[in-house]
Amino acid sequence: MVVEMTGAPKLQIALDCLTIDAALHLMEQVHHYVDIVEVGTPLIFEEGLGAVEQIKSKYPDKIYMADLKIMDAGGIEAGSGFARGADIVTVLGIAADVTIRAALESADRHGGEVMIDLINAPDPVPRCCELEGMGVPILCLHTAFDRQGSVKADSQSLAEVRRQVACRVAVAGGITLDTLPAVVDAGADIVIVGGAIARAPDPGEAAASMKQRLARRLA
Amino acid sequence: MVVEMTGAPKLQIALDCLTIDAALHLMEQVHHYVDIVEVGTPLIFEEGLGAVEQIKSKYPDKIYMADLKIMDAGGIEAGSGFARGADIVTVLGIAADVTIRAALESADRHGGEVMIDLINAPDPVPRCCELEGMGVPILCLHTAFDRQGSVKADSQSLAEVRRQVACRVAVAGGITLDTLPAVVDAGADIVIVGGAIARAPDPGEAAASMKQRLARRLA
Repeated sequence: MVVEMTGAPKLQIALDCLTIDAALHLMEQVHHYVDIVEVGTPLIFEEGLGAVEQIKSKYPDKIYMADLKIMDAGGIEAGSGFARGADIVTVLGIAADVTIRAALESADRHGGEVMIDLINAPDPVPRCCELEGMGVPILCLHTAFDRQGSVKADSQSLAEVRRQVACRVAVAGGITLDTLPAVVDAGADIVIVGGAIARAPDPGEAAASMKQRLARRLA
Repeated sequence: MVVEMTGAPKLQIALDCLTIDAALHLMEQVHHYVDIVEVGTPLIFEEGLGAVEQIKSKYPDKIYMADLKIMDAGGIEAGSGFARGADIVTVLGIAADVTIRAALESADRHGGEVMIDLINAPDPVPRCCELEGMGVPILCLHTAFDRQGSVKADSQSLAEVRRQVACRVAVAGGITLDTLPAVVDAGADIVIVGGAIARAPDPGEAAASMKQRLARRLA
């Protein structure tokens, strides 16, 4: 499946769990409200890409992203992700261009897509322009989980990237119901949320509120 | 287990396979000659950290490295690696310092070690000095697999890093029996070899030759 650009921005849930059971429990609560399901890096380390297959077998109507954060062996690793059911795999923006191109070629072969994660990229705006020039369909501006105490999701660089590129732009890193409108106004096509849903008192309600707020901002 | 610094440089085999069976088949041929076993990123994506457990259960006397290339969630992801049997986990040198510190703390708690992979680090020599200052025990100068056609394992930057730091230094990326002496002379403590062993006509013989050449260069 390919992420459509029409309609309201898409809501992506980051399943940042360490077990399939915890991921499935969260999905049970939020699946009505999310468009894209991200199988997080820690879960892939624990369980391998079988985690994508298992969650997808229960909720086959969603788009699946495997957060591989590929840094090398772009063709091999992206190929693994697509072969095991991912619609989207992530590659780091700081990876070599040759790695990104190999992942893009793998995506073409498998009918999948590559999302480039700009986490810790030293100069994200010009890098985003380069990446779009290479044919990258989705860019992700991402504040590292480990840095969310000191650095917040930055709507300003999002707006700047939005002005420079025509491809889809996702944003991730500490987004809450309160910060979501600014992120959407700055031009996000995909809003990636982890803790603000997973650690809410009622994750289903939190996801529903976010989905509703995104629908109200339909372009 | 902790990698000792005494004696000849250590030989690390990179198990860059996509299945446990292929990894075990290679181990069967080379286990007599290798000190450290690297469970490669593609195999961890395919099988999860259970791959470390499975290979270690057959060859428990080796040191195991899980090539997680951690970029975020340093404490969580390193903790997963150590809990599943890795003696060493890798973190990217381009990760945020807070991520690296979290991985180092996890290593302390688990009695493991962190190897920092300098792959694609824009300015590796000063970064290595910073990393040593943070308490990193092992640095790895790494030419990406995807770039090995155009960029070769660079003994010159290895020698420069060796002059600047006292911690252990590993080197990876396209090393062969022919290039191994230069790498050792430049000061490598750990030599990481993948294709030159795995794709040799006789992997056991290739590993034995490398081990012998390392022993001859005993400091």
